[in-house]
Amino acid sequence: MSGGATGAHEMTVFCLADPGDAFLVPTPYYPGFDRDLRWRTGAQLVPVVCERSNDFKVTREALEAAYKSAQEATIRVKGLLITNPSNPLGTILDRETLRMVVSFINEKSIHLVCDEIYAATVFTRPGFISIAEIIQEKEIECNHDLIHIVYSLSKDLGFPGFRVGIVYSYNDAVVSCCRKMSSFGLVSSQTQHLIASMLSDDEFVNKFIAGSANKLAARHKVFTEGLAKVGISCLQSNAGLFVWMDLHHLLKEQTFEAEIALWKVIIREVKLNVSPGSSFHCSAPGWFRVCFANMDDQTMDVALTRIRAFAVQNNETSTTVPMKRQCWQKQQSNLRLSLKSRRMDDLVMTQCSMSPHSPLAQSPLVRARN
Amino acid sequence: MSGGATGAHEMTVFCLADPGDAFLVPTPYYPGFDRDLRWRTGAQLVPVVCERSNDFKVTREALEAAYKSAQEATIRVKGLLITNPSNPLGTILDRETLRMVVSFINEKSIHLVCDEIYAATVFTRPGFISIAEIIQEKEIECNHDLIHIVYSLSKDLGFPGFRVGIVYSYNDAVVSCCRKMSSFGLVSSQTQHLIASMLSDDEFVNKFIAGSANKLAARHKVFTEGLAKVGISCLQSNAGLFVWMDLHHLLKEQTFEAEIALWKVIIREVKLNVSPGSSFHCSAPGWFRVCFANMDDQTMDVALTRIRAFAVQNNETSTTVPMKRQCWQKQQSNLRLSLKSRRMDDLVMTQCSMSPHSPLAQSPLVRARN
Repeated sequence: MSGGATGAHEMTVFCLADPGDAFLVPTPYYPGFDRDLRWRTGAQLVPVVCERSNDFKVTREALEAAYKSAQEATIRVKGLLITNPSNPLGTILDRETLRMVVSFINEKSIHLVCDEIYAATVFTRPGFISIAEIIQEKEIECNHDLIHIVYSLSKDLGFPGFRVGIVYSYNDAVVSCCRKMSSFGLVSSQTQHLIASMLSDDEFVNKFIAGSANKLAARHKVFTEGLAKVGISCLQSNAGLFVWMDLHHLLKEQTFEAEIALWKVIIREVKLNVSPGSSFHCSAPGWFRVCFANMDDQTMDVALTRIRAFAVQNNETSTTVPMKRQCWQKQQSNLRLSLKSRRMDDLVMTQCSMSPHSPLAQSPLVRARN
Repeated sequence: MSGGATGAHEMTVFCLADPGDAFLVPTPYYPGFDRDLRWRTGAQLVPVVCERSNDFKVTREALEAAYKSAQEATIRVKGLLITNPSNPLGTILDRETLRMVVSFINEKSIHLVCDEIYAATVFTRPGFISIAEIIQEKEIECNHDLIHIVYSLSKDLGFPGFRVGIVYSYNDAVVSCCRKMSSFGLVSSQTQHLIASMLSDDEFVNKFIAGSANKLAARHKVFTEGLAKVGISCLQSNAGLFVWMDLHHLLKEQTFEAEIALWKVIIREVKLNVSPGSSFHCSAPGWFRVCFANMDDQTMDVALTRIRAFAVQNNETSTTVPMKRQCWQKQQSNLRLSLKSRRMDDLVMTQCSMSPHSPLAQSPLVRARN
């Protein structure tokens, strides 16, 4: 156990990598990894570039290409880190992909760290498959010493403040090393006591997780259908506390500069706290992660209304004045007036009022740290 | 805030030192520093050798000698770490010594990390003086950016399991860096809530600390007087949860090998969990740290009776058979029988039943890690 998944990830890398060693990480990935895995360990991350044309699926070709690029740069690859379900995509890895991943790391003899902190957020079929299940399959060849799972209670049970992170490793040396390192981020004994009594209550846990999944499913439906009505699509997903929203059609040009410009408008004018795809090292511009689970119904309604109004106004402008597709940039003041006139500022989300742990705060901070 | 003083110390070193950089640390010092400060940061510790002839006081000469030895080894010294009150000595640093320390680090332009986690355990006069008080003195010249205090609630309030560590730095850059690093070892929100309400109750805190000091004073008196009656002296001290016991007259020869041999007899035959001075990098053999505060009265009586019986038997043997001063080594089986016949094994302290955080467990573990 360790101080949250943050501490668990750092601890795992401290165990597995020397400074300069690298982990492959499929993109888009949680930007906190750039801090958690690299900052104090001196390890590097090598992106495995996943493509929008393929719904950002992890392929053998992408893994091989990343591995090869690291080798060419004489970087020693010590492992692969996958996040299942994915943050920010909200998708899960299917059995075939998981088998391919195990085959890949076993062949290269590198470690596999599976971040499964969103395991219980899967809210519709198909269900979640843990790497623990895959490596038990008869036909799978795998050195279990290479397998390590990171878990936490922050997402599945909604206890981010309790700082309960878990490393579940099949490697005795890693377990032994983690035990010694755990003194840097132990879980409070008071919290351990509470958690132990709560987790012993199977009925409560099952009811809580099922209820939570139902709520996530309902919220996801309302949110994505609301966006679809104004022509905004999201990557199809069935897990996580967020959607991966596609706004590439609203970009002035298909660049990450244009994405950041759009992001700034969304933050400052539309006043919604979303995270740009570039902060997740996404290979294609125009994607944004929108958390839909960390607010009450009323706030979600306001958020949905705002983004729809923004999209509608932008669609209208781009339809009626096709030569001025950069409308939202030039018409920021109009947009603000328009929004104000619709009285949607009753719940104002400003940069000042954001939590330091909000996705917005994470991305620039992480960038600043690199 | 961070995960205990353990996390606080590591965080401070991560902020101040690059791998290879060193901190000066007066001996004897808490063996956990060899793990906390060095293990993941890559920093080094350079001992400041304090002498038994001087009651292990920190002198300017000792600091200069350590600094010089580091320079000669082309090691970059980034700071000095002092522990006030001292673990394992139980002594406090007087005003003159603290002023000298500040003058030294200011002159060398190196950082000063003050571990003050035993501040409120001072149980008789003179009182504790924080480095925070010294650097406010008018006549003291000091760049406050060099001053950092580590604190925790583990010792003064008896909450080691709550993992509340604190870095109080006068350096804005360090505070900013620590804030970012704190995500690796945050304090559980539940525990923060409890602690906040408890610490807001001044009456409770004052009463608790005063009551605790009274208990420590009483226990210290009984324990040291009990040892004195059989000719065992301890370093004069007025703080901490332990005494620094002098058994050098029981050593076969004045070496650390002989100290470890004696320690093994105390552990295995006398069945007392004490820590040998060598694990604290003490410069002179024959000293042992004895925690007297982590047991009830009955257990302490048993412990005191055991060690007195051991000392008496050893004194008797060495008086009646002066040619066989190594008696306790050759007569281990006799000793065991003797102890058993006195029926002092009703409270057995074995290695198996020791807590992993006991002083005994710390020292061999730390050595094993280095």
